[in-house]
Formats: sequence, structure tokens, C-alpha cells
Amino acid sequence: MFRHTQRLQFEAKPDQPDPLYAKKLQELVGGAWGEMTVAMQYMFQGWNCRAPGKYKDMILDIGTEELGHVEMLATMIARLLEGAPSETTAGMVDNDPVLGAIVGGMDPQQAIVGGGGALPVDSDGTPWNGKYIVASGNLLADFRVNVAAESQGRLQTARLYRMTDDPGVKEMLKFNLARDTMHQLQWLSAIEQLQEDGLEGTIAPNALLDEENQQHNSTLWGLSDGTTADQGKWASGTAPDGQHEFSYLDQPDPLGDLASAPPPDPYLYATSETTAPNTEDRGIVGKVKDKLS
Amino acid sequence: MFRHTQRLQFEAKPDQPDPLYAKKLQELVGGAWGEMTVAMQYMFQGWNCRAPGKYKDMILDIGTEELGHVEMLATMIARLLEGAPSETTAGMVDNDPVLGAIVGGMDPQQAIVGGGGALPVDSDGTPWNGKYIVASGNLLADFRVNVAAESQGRLQTARLYRMTDDPGVKEMLKFNLARDTMHQLQWLSAIEQLQEDGLEGTIAPNALLDEENQQHNSTLWGLSDGTTADQGKWASGTAPDGQHEFSYLDQPDPLGDLASAPPPDPYLYATSETTAPNTEDRGIVGKVKDKLS
Amino acid sequence: MFRHTQRLQFEAKPDQPDPLYAKKLQELVGGAWGEMTVAMQYMFQGWNCRAPGKYKDMILDIGTEELGHVEMLATMIARLLEGAPSETTAGMVDNDPVLGAIVGGMDPQQAIVGGGGALPVDSDGTPWNGKYIVASGNLLADFRVNVAAESQGRLQTARLYRMTDDPGVKEMLKFNLARDTMHQLQWLSAIEQLQEDGLEGTIAPNALLDEENQQHNSTLWGLSDGTTADQGKWASGTAPDGQHEFSYLDQPDPLGDLASAPPPDPYLYATSETTAPNTEDRGIVGKVKDKLS
Amino acid sequence: MFRHTQRLQFEAKPDQPDPLYAKKLQELVGGAWGEMTVAMQYMFQGWNCRAPGKYKDMILDIGTEELGHVEMLATMIARLLEGAPSETTAGMVDNDPVLGAIVGGMDPQQAIVGGGGALPVDSDGTPWNGKYIVASGNLLADFRVNVAAESQGRLQTARLYRMTDDPGVKEMLKFNLARDTMHQLQWLSAIEQLQEDGLEGTIAPNALLDEENQQHNSTLWGLSDGTTADQGKWASGTAPDGQHEFSYLDQPDPLGDLASAPPPDPYLYATSETTAPNTEDRGIVGKVKDKLS
Amino acid sequence: MFRHTQRLQFEAKPDQPDPLYAKKLQELVGGAWGEMTVAMQYMFQGWNCRAPGKYKDMILDIGTEELGHVEMLATMIARLLEGAPSETTAGMVDNDPVLGAIVGGMDPQQAIVGGGGALPVDSDGTPWNGKYIVASGNLLADFRVNVAAESQGRLQTARLYRMTDDPGVKEMLKFNLARDTMHQLQWLSAIEQLQEDGLEGTIAPNALLDEENQQHNSTLWGLSDGTTADQGKWASGTAPDGQHEFSYLDQPDPLGDLASAPPPDPYLYATSETTAPNTEDRGIVGKVKDKLS
Amino acid sequence: MFRHTQRLQFEAKPDQPDPLYAKKLQELVGGAWGEMTVAMQYMFQGWNCRAPGKYKDMILDIGTEELGHVEMLATMIARLLEGAPSETTAGMVDNDPVLGAIVGGMDPQQAIVGGGGALPVDSDGTPWNGKYIVASGNLLADFRVNVAAESQGRLQTARLYRMTDDPGVKEMLKFNLARDTMHQLQWLSAIEQLQEDGLEGTIAPNALLDEENQQHNSTLWGLSDGTTADQGKWASGTAPDGQHEFSYLDQPDPLGDLASAPPPDPYLYATSETTAPNTEDRGIVGKVKDKLS
Repeated sequence: MFRHTQRLQFEAKPDQPDPLYAKKLQELVGGAWGEMTVAMQYMFQGWNCRAPGKYKDMILDIGTEELGHVEMLATMIARLLEGAPSETTAGMVDNDPVLGAIVGGMDPQQAIVGGGGALPVDSDGTPWNGKYIVASGNLLADFRVNVAAESQGRLQTARLYRMTDDPGVKEMLKFNLARDTMHQLQWLSAIEQLQEDGLEGTIAPNALLDEENQQHNSTLWGLSDGTTADQGKWASGTAPDGQHEFSYLDQPDPLGDLASAPPPDPYLYATSETTAPNTEDRGIVGKVKDKLS
Repeated sequence: MFRHTQRLQFEAKPDQPDPLYAKKLQELVGGAWGEMTVAMQYMFQGWNCRAPGKYKDMILDIGTEELGHVEMLATMIARLLEGAPSETTAGMVDNDPVLGAIVGGMDPQQAIVGGGGALPVDSDGTPWNGKYIVASGNLLADFRVNVAAESQGRLQTARLYRMTDDPGVKEMLKFNLARDTMHQLQWLSAIEQLQEDGLEGTIAPNALLDEENQQHNSTLWGLSDGTTADQGKWASGTAPDGQHEFSYLDQPDPLGDLASAPPPDPYLYATSETTAPNTEDRGIVGKVKDKLS
Repeated sequence: MFRHTQRLQFEAKPDQPDPLYAKKLQELVGGAWGEMTVAMQYMFQGWNCRAPGKYKDMILDIGTEELGHVEMLATMIARLLEGAPSETTAGMVDNDPVLGAIVGGMDPQQAIVGGGGALPVDSDGTPWNGKYIVASGNLLADFRVNVAAESQGRLQTARLYRMTDDPGVKEMLKFNLARDTMHQLQWLSAIEQLQEDGLEGTIAPNALLDEENQQHNSTLWGLSDGTTADQGKWASGTAPDGQHEFSYLDQPDPLGDLASAPPPDPYLYATSETTAPNTEDRGIVGKVKDKLS
Repeated sequence: MFRHTQRLQFEAKPDQPDPLYAKKLQELVGGAWGEMTVAMQYMFQGWNCRAPGKYKDMILDIGTEELGHVEMLATMIARLLEGAPSETTAGMVDNDPVLGAIVGGMDPQQAIVGGGGALPVDSDGTPWNGKYIVASGNLLADFRVNVAAESQGRLQTARLYRMTDDPGVKEMLKFNLARDTMHQLQWLSAIEQLQEDGLEGTIAPNALLDEENQQHNSTLWGLSDGTTADQGKWASGTAPDGQHEFSYLDQPDPLGDLASAPPPDPYLYATSETTAPNTEDRGIVGKVKDKLS
Repeated sequence: MFRHTQRLQFEAKPDQPDPLYAKKLQELVGGAWGEMTVAMQYMFQGWNCRAPGKYKDMILDIGTEELGHVEMLATMIARLLEGAPSETTAGMVDNDPVLGAIVGGMDPQQAIVGGGGALPVDSDGTPWNGKYIVASGNLLADFRVNVAAESQGRLQTARLYRMTDDPGVKEMLKFNLARDTMHQLQWLSAIEQLQEDGLEGTIAPNALLDEENQQHNSTLWGLSDGTTADQGKWASGTAPDGQHEFSYLDQPDPLGDLASAPPPDPYLYATSETTAPNTEDRGIVGKVKDKLS
Repeated sequence: MFRHTQRLQFEAKPDQPDPLYAKKLQELVGGAWGEMTVAMQYMFQGWNCRAPGKYKDMILDIGTEELGHVEMLATMIARLLEGAPSETTAGMVDNDPVLGAIVGGMDPQQAIVGGGGALPVDSDGTPWNGKYIVASGNLLADFRVNVAAESQGRLQTARLYRMTDDPGVKEMLKFNLARDTMHQLQWLSAIEQLQEDGLEGTIAPNALLDEENQQHNSTLWGLSDGTTADQGKWASGTAPDGQHEFSYLDQPDPLGDLASAPPPDPYLYATSETTAPNTEDRGIVGKVKDKLS
């Protein structure tokens, strides 16, 4: 269960409105790597966690914090939109190119739909959706997604930090940058903890390692014609798990036969030489049952 | 530019059809963490790469390989669907519960739309989309996404491996598992290489580290009431970058003021005590220009 | 079955082109609360209606009208786009900031994809989709959605009315505003009719009212720390159904136990202390059958 | 800012697993009218609220509660999936039709992607998205959406209540039904409060009522051929605002001229008799500037 | 403007319910190539048509008809769902595998969301969306899409025709098949008419034919290693426009240079050797202005 | 399996950056009719092809080429974005309207998400998705979609060609135009080949032609009130298959009865006169079983 305080985790006060920036900042609210993503991702991971208590406790600490970040950003956007022009006619733009430029670059939905508030969309107006998140139950796989999310998130925040010179906005973004730094460190640390606790190894999942194809689990297939791919650590020497030896295959041959699709079911009307007119008599169900038995 | 050979990278021959499994296998084709995702992600990353040659060369090697994996899986799915029942009536199901079960669990679009072939969708029929991938230009951020993608991908492949006992399917999946192992190792190795080459550090991006809020870049905010979150490596001691010291704040107070939205523009008709009837006379454009000047 | 007349329900003639406005007007065509939504929603509700004739007849009257509104708006948009600049180069913008502003704020797809016509998308270019509508078969629930749709629709129309000073556009929007007023009144009236006819009550659906948890169907849980939530009609006194008495619970304790997920299936490779190596021997199918029997 | 307790708002313990039901219950998590929708909708409405304090306080109370409902349902789903079959082969189904039926009707993503946990999707696997919610700033329009959401939500919960006989599941759903009853009453009461406080009237928004087309704001256009549409309260008598008198127009003529699109820009290559070959010489930019000036 | 009659264009009466088939039939309602697609596509094409009257008149005839097809299918689906099991518990499935099979294969949203009615989704539950349609203004390009839509539509109808033996369903589908035949012929005929009327040629659009690269407008690039691609009419001889001569290039070399991305903007933090620490001093805006001037 | 060369199929070098154009060009990358669509569509068609070798070989030649077009366009976009302004503040726009116009019209995600590179989205930022493509197995139906795709693609390319005067961009687009010309001719030729080879006829699919409703497979239903629809080749004379005779039905009556939905299941709580209180006693499962038997 959740509780809410109406105070923000950190201050979100711009020095002045900036409707162009209000559109850009939507990326951090409803973008694939924005705060709605990390909030919902960590909550679903926490609810689905089956590992010892400290993992679940920590995941839910952060998920709860991230929801407060959505709130901070939504508040900032509403404030950046204060006084944003809801009017714009050809004549008005003609008389005032500055206004025209602003109007042209605004997100019209923030006015028409949101009434001057933030929306659950990104900076191009694409709505946030549930496929942005994952909660797999495997903490190594999930923590790696989390490290990635905090990295993309901090990168986007850093880019946005450079796109404004409003002191109030920058103050809030300095906090966001710091939290993204912390969370990168924290998920990296949590991966170390998983390994120290013997719960996970280097490969996710820690299973089927003996059963998988041993010939093909450490070779880099050279299928593009760049000439330097074999000069990285990934093409020779010992792999990060300390067990595999990397090698490089330059333009290797395929291992399989010709790709082909099986003869079509005549009732699906795929084009084929074998779909002669009288095939409609064939009993499909019988054929299936034969196949399956 | 690309070239294609009609031979598959690895064999994709099931011992017998299995339409239920053909539906599940769609997750590896068009799921958020399937092969279309890694193929398109690595290609866009390669095309957008501005780092020294070996990185770009390597990224494009793998992107090109992954496209061949989509092909292997699509071929496997078509073969698993051979003879799949395109007919199903109430009477037929009544007489043959096994057939009914199969029919009930199939993906009807594989027949109706795909004519017995694979679709660019996941195991629930949701279409693949471009938001599943990211190519940010920052290789540390991107390689971390890649490690995550190969981890989720191998996890899903391992789960699917346990859902079949068809020797031909298992043989192919052993190859997929191996490649996912290799690719996890490789992206981990590439992250080490970036750091050895002095191109990136521990935090992505390697910028604004001095400018961000120094008070809040190493503290875990305890906002859920689990009692053990502070018992992990993430709550005390030195962080993975060797520079920050973690600390834990138990139920800290918010730092910001009350959240509030600014007074509304009267022409947007938000509900407010200040939207008195005669406010329609106010000049919005003037107000905006005042604000912006 | 439908018939069509090529005359518009109401005139849709702008005095002059305005490509910036043509983009904004897309919200009323293909937005979540636009005319495609109400047209399709009322049609599906009408087709699925099982109530006495007058309801079905009325719903289909309006659904049919709304489709004509899509037509009016699409025609208006094509006319607003007349002569819209399909060219835009850096040099051109340099020489003519007004043109640049217009070009920057246009929807490029209206030219590139639509050839100067309307698109089934909203003002941010997000395509209309079937999840915007609902036809549940329960007319109280549906008419409430309809009241809401006409309210959001009229609100967006009112906002757009304030964003233009073109007399021809305003004339059409005055008609749209009037129809939205009528339709709000009409769905409100239809709800009264449902209740007068004894078909529905205050709560949707009119079922399970005695079976639901009686302790928790009239209390407001105070979970945010605002201090005035209990000062509204919703926190004390008799509820609108004349049967429940509202009360306010200030910061109540949760009623459930600790949230937790069950022990994981070992073949799904969730991280857990109990996923010891030898668990792979356990028979899942047997376990399921035991559980289910 | 938010805080979290690991205890659930209400108990969520099924008596036994039921993977088929776990799929259906996804509708209440990630469906268009599920708990993610109301949680996010009320939060964005609260953050964007500009009305006197009690409204904002109340909205945020409920938004915070609804997030706890997502948690309850996600926990319930994980528990319903305990021991769900991750294996399914043709042979297995052949031997055990019951297992086959279960497997056929499960959501494969709950296993393959979620590792036996809930997903942010609906019962057909469609991901939740941000277009499901609205926060317009106009509280009358928004509270009407909220009444609708709680009505559709309770209706879906009632349907799901009838699809199970598990006492533990039913116990939780009785709580959900009760909360949906409360929330319907509460939003209805909040609409009354808005009107009592003089903030809103019957029509949303309370604006442009004199300016809209007065001839067309109270007539029902009879455009479908059902014969009884004029027998409801919506076709005659005084409207719910006490000001308009309804009337019915049977098969009225359209008011506008023939719909037509303007002459096409030659560079957009629309098919037209006027797109003669030499039109490519015409200066588009000049034409636009003429139009706009 | 539209009018509606409550009689269906053609009868839609199944002999008995079939909930499994009701799910499959959704493909023809809300699938990418279903009736909602052709209805909306032809309407937008008609509204955006700038060609002589007979084209517009004909397009709107068919668009109006197709909307009636959505109605027929929606009615059929509701009837197929009559008595469909809304209940399903583990015990029930245990006792009755047939029922279990049916329940497993049903679309749960048709009950939970639609109350036993059709939904604007396809047979996998993916909602219809506006990107399924196109109305480009170029009638040759659009009529070709229309031919394709009627071909995919008839193909899917034929497949569905083979999946039922219900006489009433088959009777309706025979009508749908016939209309799809007619509409294929009609759009093919309309293409001939466009060419006879001198409005369009063989290539869409009929423009820039002299300006395009003349060396590369009739050669087939052999980039896959199949050996027979040059044995079709497309690889030699005169092309269908009577003007080009096809030729085949076997494994040709690329014509461009190495792909590369330009040096990154330092404030976007792309990984690059040139992003030295002190580049943050560089003036981006000046650089842009230089570039653009 | 695929291989890649780092040289582009054709040169992609703009003479100077143009960030506004970089946004527009996204339509050709990730739009519904862009290069990702044709690349993926042809590959899935090729993998699913069951026709004689030359068809499959040819399809895969082109699919492989199209992937190289995505690469060319992505490279062009990155180069057009060189030096694009990542900064934009209100003050900056105030001082420099030209910069403001550019900033307003840019796609913010190309900077914030893509780091100055192309994205898998269209010119309005909507992500590419798998529903844009079809691979039905029926080559006539598929080749018709392919003709349509190349026609819409060339049309969009021609429009974009007119929106720039950059010689380098135009040079590349001349190549794209030429390839689209070639591919239109090629798919038209492939349709002729299918018919010459006796694999397909005029109607897709070549099946159920005798079984479909013979009265309704050649009549144009006049349902819109335009007066000239019967003046085209589609309304009289012999149809393109040489077998049907077109005719025109002016405002024909519907053939079906009144549309209606069946009595509702009481547990789905649809509004109906027949849902009397005691209907909850009725056994739904029994009713279904009766219906189905």
C-alpha cells in the first residue's frame, strides 16, 4: 500500500515559463527511458521478487522514489507552461515571428488535452506503454535492465540539462542527475551482491550452461566487412566469466541447410505448385492428427 | 549494404509439428526482447556509431548475425505449423478434446494472416515496434542495454527450451542459448574495453559529475517499510566506481515545497477559483510576451 | 446499413488557409476524445445494445451523426492546408522567419502521407486506435462514458475555438460546440431515463451490492497528507444513492498481510534461495496436477 | 512524494492456483479500465489540479489508494500462477486434455516474460498505454471520466467475480467491488460539490454557451431509421440543465454544401484534372505567402 | 453526412453459437485488413479526392458499404457469443475438457470488456489503429492499396470460411467473398480508367521520371544467393510500362562510400575519440549558424 | 544468413546540415510506407514463400536490398543533423527567430534519444510496428501489397524530393526514386508471371469462386448520392477478369433483417428488460452445453 505527501521530493521551480522546453521535458516523464518506466518497472520487479528480503526491500525503496520523480517532472512542466500561448493565427505569427517560433515548437496536446499540464507521453507525443518495462523474476537479468535504464535516463537528463539555462530547471536536473548516478551505482552494486550471495553468476540465467552448444558460445562471427572487429577484447583472450576463450571467425559459412517453408495447407491458399485444384478434398484434420501422433 | 545466403546460420528442423509451441516461439521473433529487437538495435547503433573503428565493426558483425536469427526462428515456426488445423468447429471440438485444446491455444493470426508462417509479433500477438530499441550514440549506455537484452533473451530462450521436448527444436535452441551466452560475454567485454580505452567510465555519461547535486548522488532513500534494505552492499561502503560512499536514509523527509500547478490560462477552462467570468477579456498573448521577456 | 450524402451536415469553409491550425484540428478528428471515437463508440454500443428499442434507436441516431462530423472536420483540414508550403530549406527559412515558423509547426505527415488532407491521427500524430472506445452492453456504464466523451470533446473544441480568429472556422466550431452541448444533455437525460425505466440504478452494474464488502463501500481512505479532503460532500453525509453514509478514514492501516510472491517454478529461473541446482529434477506437471485437483 | 508499506491494503490470497483465471485478471491490472488506469489518471489529475484544496487532496487520496490496488492484483496473479505448467508438448496434451485446455488458455507471456508474475497488459496481452487516461484540468470533465472509469471497472470486476468460485479470490473481489461502489458515489458527489461551490455547471466547460450555435444545441437529429428514438426524455421536454428544451428532427436535410477538397498542390502529386504538366513551374511559396497575407 | 437503416445489408444469422469462431472472426472486424480498415480508408480517400466526380462518387459508394460490413460482422459475433461461458473454474475444466477447450480458446475481452459483443480489435486482441489506412490523394497509389486490401481481405475471408461448417455463417461469408471479388475487380477497373482518362500512367506518381537516376530504374540487384531470380519476367525483357528494359545484376558492388556518422555534438555525449573534456567550451549555436549560413 | 559491407549501396552525402529535413526524412525510414516496411515485408514473404524457386529468390534479392536503403537513409539523417542545435532557450529564440523556427520544427527525440542519429520512427515520431507488413503466403495478394508499397513509397519520396534543394540529398533521392520505379515494374511483372505460370488468376485467392454468392460479385451498390459513379468502367461492361459483367444498383434496399444482439448472459450485466433479478439462478454452463450440442 502507498501513502503520499504533497511535498515534492525536491524543488521543481523554473525561473520563468518555457513552453518549448516543456515539450522536451516530456521525454523524462513518458519516454521509453523516463521516470514512468523506472517507477513501474521497479514496482513490478518488487512485487514479483522471490529473493531474500533485502533485494525486495531495496527494489521497492527505489520504485517508490521514482514515482515521486514523475510528480516532480509533471509539476515542473505545468509551471513551464504557465502563460503558454493558446492562441495562434496566421496573422499573429506574421506579426511576431518569435511567437510563431514558440507556437510551432510547442506540443499542442499539452494545451488541448492537458489544459496546460503534463501528459503521460514522450517528447514526440507517443504515449507511454507497458512494453517499456520488464520484471522477469530473474534478478540478474532485471538488474542489468535497471543499470541500462538509469544510464539512458541520465544520458537524456544530461542532454536536456544542456538545452536550458533556466537556473530553477537546472537545479532540479542536478538532483535528477545525482539520483541517476546513485541508481547506476546501486544496481551495479546489487549485481555484485547477487554474485557474492551465490544467487547468480556472470551469465543470465545461470542454467543450461553445460547443455547449450559448446562450439558456439565464445566465437564472434565476422559477418560485416569492417577489418578491425577482431582487435577488441571481445575477439580473443579470456571472457569476463573467466571460463570462456573468445575467438573470431572471419566470414564463416552458414551451418544450416537451405531455408524453406513446408508444403502449405491447401485451405490456407498459399501460392504453391502443389496446391492443385483437387487438394480441397484432402482431410486436414486427419493429416494433423497423423502428424501429432 | 547487405547480402543474403539462403542457407540458415544453424539448422531449424523440428521433429514434428507443434502449433502450440509455434505460438510461444513468436516471443523470440517479435517480442520486446526477441531477435528483431537485437537485430534492429545493433544495426541502428552501428550506423550511428562515432567511436573508433573496432566498435563499429563489431556492432555491425552482431547486428548482421541477429537478422539471421530472425530468419532461423521464422523458418522454425513455419515448420512447426505444418498441418496445423485450420478448421475448427464446435462439433469437432466436442468429438476430440485434444484437437480442441490445440485449437484453443493456437495463435489464429498465424493461420488467418500469415498463411501458416511466422508474424512480426510476440507470443500474445502484440506487434513488434520501434520503441523496443535504442541507439543513443553513447556506447556505455548502449552496451548496457545490449547486455540486458542478451540476458532477457537468454532467459526467455531457456524458459522456452523447457517447454518442449522436440529434439530438433532443442538442438536449435541450444545454439541460440550459446549465442546469447557469447553475446552477454561480448558486451560485458566491450564495456571493459571502453573503460580501458579511456572512452567511458563507470557512470553514463561521463559528464556533469562535478556539476550534479553532490549531496544526493550516493544515498539510498528508504521509502518502503521493509527493514532490510540497508543490509546490501548498495547501502554502505564504497560504490563500484571507487569514489562514492553509499549511505542509507531511513524514511527521510521530502526536500521540496508543496506541489502545485500555476494559475490556469482562462481560455483553457481549467477549474479554478480564479477563472472568474470576465477573465475572457484578458490578453493571453500579451501575458505570454511579458512572461518571456 | 448506411447511406451517404455528399453534402456536409454543416458548412466547413475557412476564410483562409492556416496549416498550423490544420495540425491542431487533428485532435478533433483522431484524438482519444475526437469524433472518430464517438462515432465508433456509439455504433458499437448501438450494435451491441440489448435494451428496449428507444435506446438502440437513439444511440444509432447519434453514432451516425458523429461520422458526419469526422467528414466535416476532414474537409475543413484539407481546406486549411490549401497552399501549405511543401518546400522548406534552410535558406528559405533564413530569408523568411514567418515561413520558417509555419513550416516548423506543421504536421509533416499531412503533406508527405496525406497529400494535403486529414489523417486518422491526433494533433501529435498518434494514430487513433480501438482502445479509445468502449461498448460494454451495460448502458449506465456506457452512457457515463458518453457523457465524459462529450465533455472532454466540448472542452477541447472550446480550447481550439480560442486558438483561431478565422470566421469560417469559428462558425463551424460554434456548431460543434452546440452539438456537444446537446449530446451532454442527451446522455445525462438518457441516464435519468434508464433509472426511471427501472433498468439501472445509481451504481453500475446494479448487482452484487449485497455481496460486496459492506465495511468498505462508503469510506474515503486518506492516504495523501492534504488536510482538507474531508471537507467535501464525499467524506460525510448521505451518498448520491441515498443509501450509503460517507465517512473518512485518516491515514488508515493496511488490512492485508505482507505482499509476497509464491516460490518460483525452477524452470522459469527466477532468482530465489530455493532454486537449488537439483530442483531441475522436480516434476512440474505433477505439481500442477496436484495443485489443481 | 510517496511512501510504501509492504502490507497490502487488503488480503489477496487465492485458495488454489488457477492459471486461466490469472490471464483474465490481467484485465483489472493493465486493461483500459483497470487499476493502472485509475491510479495514473487520478495522480495526473491531482498534480494538474488548480481548484481549491479539498479537490486536490481528495483526488490524491484516491490515486494513491488505486496504486495499492495494482499491487494487490499483481500479487494475486503471481499466486494464481503458482505451479502453472511451463511445459507443454504435443504428447503431453495428447495424454491429458485437461492440462491441454489449461495450457491453451494461459497467457504464455506470464511465464516467458514475467517468470510467473503479473504484466502491465490486459487479458488479451495488449500493453497498458498513456492514452487510456486523461487529466484535462477541467474537473467537471475529469470527474465524469472518473465516474465512467469506476463504472466500467466495477462492471468488469463483477463479470470476473462470476468467473471464479475460489473463496480467496472472491473475498478480494468483494473488496474491489466495494471500493468501486464507493468511488462511483464519491465522484458523483464531487460533481455535486463542484456545482454547489459554483465552480462548474451542467455543461462542460461552462463557457461559450451564449456564443455557440443556439439553433442546434438541443435537437436530436434522427439519422437512423429506428422509429422510437423520439420516445425518450432526450427528445422532448426540458433538458437536465433546466434551460434547454429538447426536440427531435426526423431525417433532417444536411445544412452544408457539397464536401470537396481544394485544388491540390502540384508538388504533392494528388490526382486531379488541374495538375497539368507545366504546373511544376508554379511557385508554391509565393502562393502560400499570397494566401496568408 | 450519413444515414443509417437498422436492417443489415445481408443476413448475419449463425445456426448456433460458437465462441471460438467469434474470436477468429474479429480478424475481419478490427484486423489490419478487416472491414474497419476498408471503411475508413475509402472514406478518407473520398473526402480527400480531387479528381473528377465519378471517382469520388464511386469511392464513397464503397466506403459507405464497407461500414455496413462492420455492422454485419459485429452482429454475427454477438450472436456467435450467445450463451458463451462467462464462468470457468479449475474444477469445471477438470470435469469437462470440451468446455475447458472452448474457454481456453475464447477471447476473454469479448466477455469482460464487450459484455458478449464484438470489439474493435483483431483475432489476437490487438486494437485497430489509424496507421492501417492510407489516403494519399494520388489515386493510382491509393487504388493499388485498395486492390491489395480487397485481396488480403478475401484471402482471410476464404480461410475463415474453411474454419466453420455453420450454414448460417457460411451464407454470410459467401456474400462477403462475393463483395471482395467485386471490389477487386472494381479497383482494377478503376486503375484502367485512370489510365484511359490520361490521369495516371504505370508508375506512381507520374512525375520525376526523367529526373530520377536512369541507370538504376530497371535493374534487379542480385543480393541473395538463390540462382534462379533471373529466370522471371522481371529480370529481362520489356517492363510492364512498355518503356524500360529489365536487366539483372548478379552480386553487384555497392556504389557508395563507407557509411559513417559525422562528429558528434559534444553536448549530446556520444562516445567518440574527439569528445575531449574541453570541448564543452565550444559554442554549438555558433557552429550551427555557420553550418546553415 | 546475412552479410554486410560497410559501403553504402549509393552515396548519402548532403551538402549541408538541415535538421528540419532530417525530421521529415524519418518518414522514409520508419513510416508505414518507409524502407523498414518493405525490408521486413519482403523478408517475411521470402521466408514464408512456398512457390517455385525464382519467386523466393527474387523476393529475397529485394528484401536484402531494402535493408540497405534503411542504412542509406539513417546515414543521411545523421549527416543532416550535424551541428543541429541541442540548446534552445526562450532568450535564444527571442534573439534569433531563424534559430527558433529551426528548433521548433526539429524532432527533439533525434537529439534527446538518438544522440543525433536516425530513429525507427516516422516524421511525426510514431514508432514503426509489425502491423505495417504482411506476408500471407498467397503471392498474388502479397505482390499487390508490394506494388502498393512501392507506389506509396515513391510518392512520398517524390514529395520529399520537392521539399529540399540540397544537391547531395537530391542525388540520393534520385536513386531512391529510380529503385521505386524499378520495384513497381518488377512486382507488376511478377504478377504477370504468376498468371502466366498458371499459379494465380485475377481474383485473390483463386478459390471459392463458384461457391461465393453469384448474385453479388459484380454489382456496385450506390450508397452515396453522387450522381456519376455509374459513369466509370467499374459500373458496366466486362470486368478485368473477362468473366464478370459489372452492373450498378442505385440506392438498393438492404437484404438482411433488423440487426439485433441476442439476449444477454445475466452474469455479464448488460442492460436489458430480460435481466430480471432471479436470472442469476440460471445455469450458464448448462445453457452453453445445450447450445453447443
